[in-house]
Amino acid sequence: MRGTVLYAPGDVRVEDRPDPRIEQPTDAVIRLAASCVCGSDLWPYRGIEPVDGPSPMGHEYVGVVEEVGSEVTTIRPGQFVVGSFFASDNTCEICRAGYQTHCVNRQPGAPTGAQAEYARIPLADGTLVATPDTPADDLVPGLLAASDVLGTGWFAAVAAEAGPGRTVAVVGDGAVGLLGVLAARRLGAERVVAFSRHADRQALAREFGATDVVTTRGDEGVAEVRELTGGLGAHSVIEAVGTQESMLQAIRATRAGGHVGYVGVSHDVSLPGEELFSSGVHLHGGPAPVRRFLPELIDLICARQIDPGRVFDLELPLDQAAEGYRAMDERRAIKTLLRP
Amino acid sequence: MRGTVLYAPGDVRVEDRPDPRIEQPTDAVIRLAASCVCGSDLWPYRGIEPVDGPSPMGHEYVGVVEEVGSEVTTIRPGQFVVGSFFASDNTCEICRAGYQTHCVNRQPGAPTGAQAEYARIPLADGTLVATPDTPADDLVPGLLAASDVLGTGWFAAVAAEAGPGRTVAVVGDGAVGLLGVLAARRLGAERVVAFSRHADRQALAREFGATDVVTTRGDEGVAEVRELTGGLGAHSVIEAVGTQESMLQAIRATRAGGHVGYVGVSHDVSLPGEELFSSGVHLHGGPAPVRRFLPELIDLICARQIDPGRVFDLELPLDQAAEGYRAMDERRAIKTLLRP
Repeated sequence: MRGTVLYAPGDVRVEDRPDPRIEQPTDAVIRLAASCVCGSDLWPYRGIEPVDGPSPMGHEYVGVVEEVGSEVTTIRPGQFVVGSFFASDNTCEICRAGYQTHCVNRQPGAPTGAQAEYARIPLADGTLVATPDTPADDLVPGLLAASDVLGTGWFAAVAAEAGPGRTVAVVGDGAVGLLGVLAARRLGAERVVAFSRHADRQALAREFGATDVVTTRGDEGVAEVRELTGGLGAHSVIEAVGTQESMLQAIRATRAGGHVGYVGVSHDVSLPGEELFSSGVHLHGGPAPVRRFLPELIDLICARQIDPGRVFDLELPLDQAAEGYRAMDERRAIKTLLRP
Repeated sequence: MRGTVLYAPGDVRVEDRPDPRIEQPTDAVIRLAASCVCGSDLWPYRGIEPVDGPSPMGHEYVGVVEEVGSEVTTIRPGQFVVGSFFASDNTCEICRAGYQTHCVNRQPGAPTGAQAEYARIPLADGTLVATPDTPADDLVPGLLAASDVLGTGWFAAVAAEAGPGRTVAVVGDGAVGLLGVLAARRLGAERVVAFSRHADRQALAREFGATDVVTTRGDEGVAEVRELTGGLGAHSVIEAVGTQESMLQAIRATRAGGHVGYVGVSHDVSLPGEELFSSGVHLHGGPAPVRRFLPELIDLICARQIDPGRVFDLELPLDQAAEGYRAMDERRAIKTLLRP
């Protein structure tokens, strides 16, 4: 099959790779309907994370089940399924508490190599959620978004306790931040403040329900949020970047007793204890347990109540994956969808 | 009047000081029934926090109202009152959300100098809570504990979401940690694990409801808590120390999706972003909004349903405050009560 491999920073190739096969009796193999490039794929692409030899890329996926292992009981060949970036059994105590990314049997980064024609999904029964029917083609981008960026933005909004009567600020205008806006609004937030300096992203943020856009960042941006909230700060802040500056911006934009939901993968972040202590905020986040939200998100998408697929502003055939990476790296695209 | 003043590390004196007077129309002056030495008083006493010239000491207090300012409407002379270490109006939006230590009109460290015969309390209506009647003398230590260490331990247990079915671990066996044990149990926790290496504190922890005692600390202590919880970690962890080691111990002893309630005043703490991100815990804490809990705690104490005054294992006349500090510094006493 064809699949994407990162050889070195900036060097992404689509090449022939071995067809995935059932390796464990709990596996499934799916034929991908679509895949995409993640903001987190840009860390190694930009050389900020080391590239350890040729690496198959991609962890967001939707597709049709081709084959299942002998112990798979609920997922069946022919079903259209959505999964996420951590395989989980969905039955252990941690999964049942809604933290499938910390499942006691989790397989992080499973699958790797989903920017491809086929993928092997471990723990298929726990990891995959089937759609009620085979979805119309125009729903595929939304379902693909549910696989990571929507589920992650949704978790951030839940972690930030976005809800009725609340003002929610969103740090980060990538796909996760933008879908954090959508989630906050959908969860009932009264006011959603998007931090963004890019006209296209501001427009999409407004389409997703942002009521205010702040174009400054850092302490200047914090001051604007405080001004919008009677000097108190936002009730809820979503952090979707993962740098020291963005984390401090999120904490400082939150009122005492408010909630920060952080999902930007931390890179060189070190939180000063004294400042955190005196802030009085709640802090929760980490790798999003997307699986927790998949059934609800699939329903909302299939009922056309939300359209998270709008974050894909570039669609390319899989063979042009390299251009998809370049466009995101150069901020010409918010998110690239790849069709095998 | 007589009052305690810290001149330099290790140098506490009781001397004549000016009588407090009504300065603002929202002030009250109270005659102290009892005061005490706080674990946080030991930071400057030990020279870990700088001593900026002679400093009146003490911020925990109960007593009888002597006089009120012209704008005080609910607090009256003759009432027995309990306050806490931050004066707050208890009417602003932040107070109403339960974060009185972040009141928009707060006066941190007010009163200072409560290890004395009298104290001026700003924002008396918002800060002070009167007991139903003048309490029996043996209830005074418990009410005094409510003023800080009980309220702080209680907040930590609430922040850690201690409750039915939960296993709660408590890092720190000072008065706050021990009262965190009491709070966790009272809030319904199924199992309470106290970290302690001191026989007297272990005994009091068990009296307050600890079901298990762990005598190791750091990663060794974390491993013991994980062993007690089927490898998962505690649902809730109370942190009542404030050092780098204790914060990491608390985070690492908590299961993914669990809650850390931290109230140890942070000293040189720096939380590594990557570890916090991958832990998946909730983090909440800071200066405890004791005022939120005072009405409930006063009721429980006056109804003799809890006896938090048990943390005072040394009682001295005010004039012997220096010995009270020494005994706590040398860990001969958990907490010293001072009678003016």
